[in-house]
Amino acid sequence: MRLSRYFLPVLKENPAEAQIVSHRYMLRAGMIKQQAAGIYSWLPLGYKVLKRIEQIVHEEQIRAGHIPLLMPTLQPADLWRESGRYDDYGQEMLRIKDRHERDMLYGPTNEEMITDIFRSHVNSYKDLPLTLYHIQWKFRDEVRPRFGVMRGREFLMKDGYNFDLTKEDALHAYNRHMVSYLRTYERMGLTAIPMRAASGPIGGDNTHEFLVLASTGESEVFYDDRVTELKLGTRDVDYDNRAEVLGICDEFTSLYARTDETHDAAVFEQVPEAHRKVGRGIEVGQIFYFGTKYSESMGATVVTADGSRVPVEMGSHGIGVSRLLGALIEANHDDKGIIWPEGVTPFHCGIVNLKQGDAATDAACEGLYKALKAQGLDPLYDDRDERAGAKFATMDLIGLPWRITVGPRGLANGVVELTSRRSGESEEMSAEAAVARIAQIYADHP
Amino acid sequence: MRLSRYFLPVLKENPAEAQIVSHRYMLRAGMIKQQAAGIYSWLPLGYKVLKRIEQIVHEEQIRAGHIPLLMPTLQPADLWRESGRYDDYGQEMLRIKDRHERDMLYGPTNEEMITDIFRSHVNSYKDLPLTLYHIQWKFRDEVRPRFGVMRGREFLMKDGYNFDLTKEDALHAYNRHMVSYLRTYERMGLTAIPMRAASGPIGGDNTHEFLVLASTGESEVFYDDRVTELKLGTRDVDYDNRAEVLGICDEFTSLYARTDETHDAAVFEQVPEAHRKVGRGIEVGQIFYFGTKYSESMGATVVTADGSRVPVEMGSHGIGVSRLLGALIEANHDDKGIIWPEGVTPFHCGIVNLKQGDAATDAACEGLYKALKAQGLDPLYDDRDERAGAKFATMDLIGLPWRITVGPRGLANGVVELTSRRSGESEEMSAEAAVARIAQIYADHP
Repeated sequence: MRLSRYFLPVLKENPAEAQIVSHRYMLRAGMIKQQAAGIYSWLPLGYKVLKRIEQIVHEEQIRAGHIPLLMPTLQPADLWRESGRYDDYGQEMLRIKDRHERDMLYGPTNEEMITDIFRSHVNSYKDLPLTLYHIQWKFRDEVRPRFGVMRGREFLMKDGYNFDLTKEDALHAYNRHMVSYLRTYERMGLTAIPMRAASGPIGGDNTHEFLVLASTGESEVFYDDRVTELKLGTRDVDYDNRAEVLGICDEFTSLYARTDETHDAAVFEQVPEAHRKVGRGIEVGQIFYFGTKYSESMGATVVTADGSRVPVEMGSHGIGVSRLLGALIEANHDDKGIIWPEGVTPFHCGIVNLKQGDAATDAACEGLYKALKAQGLDPLYDDRDERAGAKFATMDLIGLPWRITVGPRGLANGVVELTSRRSGESEEMSAEAAVARIAQIYADHP
Repeated sequence: MRLSRYFLPVLKENPAEAQIVSHRYMLRAGMIKQQAAGIYSWLPLGYKVLKRIEQIVHEEQIRAGHIPLLMPTLQPADLWRESGRYDDYGQEMLRIKDRHERDMLYGPTNEEMITDIFRSHVNSYKDLPLTLYHIQWKFRDEVRPRFGVMRGREFLMKDGYNFDLTKEDALHAYNRHMVSYLRTYERMGLTAIPMRAASGPIGGDNTHEFLVLASTGESEVFYDDRVTELKLGTRDVDYDNRAEVLGICDEFTSLYARTDETHDAAVFEQVPEAHRKVGRGIEVGQIFYFGTKYSESMGATVVTADGSRVPVEMGSHGIGVSRLLGALIEANHDDKGIIWPEGVTPFHCGIVNLKQGDAATDAACEGLYKALKAQGLDPLYDDRDERAGAKFATMDLIGLPWRITVGPRGLANGVVELTSRRSGESEEMSAEAAVARIAQIYADHP
């Protein structure tokens, strides 16, 4: 993309309404615009990151054998009356009446609807196991929306639901979700730690939250800091292999890591003092096993091998897709702006033309731009007639991990400059070498 | 995807509520489930087609130089009070009050919000031209939703908005949209004819609708049937070349083609009788040029080169993404089910195992499945323990354009059978040849 033809409305001033760094940088980098309290437009740059995150979530869910579908945003109230949650849910549920005065609501979550889909179409244990998920906009009418997309009212969430015959099967589904989530966050460049959690309004016995450590997090967290060094890496997980999946879950949950809701000071005391850490965390996902809570109240049953009929064992599992943008920025920034991890960056690299209008420099930049595109890469070329300082400031603010700087002086020596946004380090090399290096970097970050 | 692990709840019976073939087949093929009047869940098969359509729309918009973003589903009523449409829009607008009793609405379209984004961030003619679009769920509270996704209440639409300095520039944007839409529909295997239309509640002088001919269409259409033979084909369009883009628009609009709203019997009479046709059509898109209607009322102005301030010239352009599934099926089916065009098929081909459980047949199917996946193709392998007849019926119903049938008799001769869903013709060949043929077919349908 050529910046002269893009829509990237960066702000020079710090917006007064933003209390935390991610909100401030998302506004300043022209990623979002507030349309009402807690309701945002995703401007082109923000939308690109949102799509990259969504894509990673999809890929990892499909890899785990989970099946995508899409439920609507509006739901009939009757489904929620069946489960008993219509009255339980407080004012956070946005209740709506249509033109025929029928009670509707903007879905805050989808346990009822997915259970309705299941009971309408599945009748036999032979159709199990089944995990269905979607990525769809939700609405929670928070009394005081704040922190930008971190606590918005209209937000994008991945929510998935497993249907299993036995508790053992459902716990395997739970574990499968834990592993797929670990891989999802890792691909985004995030360390998200699974922590035992309290269940809240969804209900459920087994539940873990995934927390990203950040000083602005809403939860206090207590952990053994060796947990932050665990990596799934490039292991090729067989999601049907129960022992393997369970082994990974054990590896990632055996070290102490809890939120204030489930913290146990006596157990925490047993962590060696050098590793005992207290901090804050941002919740970016949660998995639940809740058994037959919805299948019983809503009649989602299957016929078993012996002909009897049993309610299915279920769980639900969510990733806060839009919230992840905030969490990513909270965890990846400096005082100049955002520093995107390669897995989620909106553009793979930036090209800064130091002398726009100079025929040789323009031609070199064009050549570089086309060579990067020919490699399947998506560069942002700052071809505006602006000072170098302004171009650098924009690139630093929007946080592309790599920048190629092209100027007459370098070109005289046959080189361009490749700069890492994270380290700030620059290296001179030929344009061809810069293209090859960028291509290699992204080949290593699938 | 292995069918034994998929969620494809096909129905044997014709659902009583479906009055038209697309609605009937979408329900029978397990593509959608109604959750409330005019509100649907997109089950896995339907969701896949929806995503393929969305992907084509994105690719062609980006090719035309238009920039994606994403506006929220809910909007504050105040924006619509500014444009004067809050009171004009009737009961089709779903009005909502949040917990603080603020007036909100579920967006039926986005002229106001995009104009608000524009005026907040753009101040100079130098930032023009600009075309922004999104693909987002909309809501229109139809009094009698019907025909499945063809006239739903919650529906997915691509809507794009151009901002230009002059009327001439805005008309180029209009033409650019026409050409990009022609290519979009053609890639889906649809003949959608641009017809001069009346403007309706959006306002506007120049407007064309795109209609797909189908006997179940809601509009009566009058046309010179030579218009149905026009093809954009593989022309490499330069969307910045005004003359080229205009030339294509002239080519596709010079033959008579109008809806009943703009039909002129006297002009129609001049079409040679052999080519004069009256039929019905389904609207799948519309483009509008409306000048300064919203920019004036909402103060979206830019400073020009001479320092004066003028309201921007605008247009809005929509494609009915979810509705297209219905239109595609209306235009592509027979009495056995759907016949997907290659451009939008949910799976590239089906594999039918005639003797599930037979070691050699199972192995041949597995090999074929993996060979197709290795080519980047997405096959659906019917590995269920079912009769051949039931497997064929399912494949015919869900409409994959190509089916590979594998059985012990063919394998004894070293062949499988490749069948075209559209022609019904079969050909025997080696498994390798079948894979190569399918790969070639999709390479030719990008």
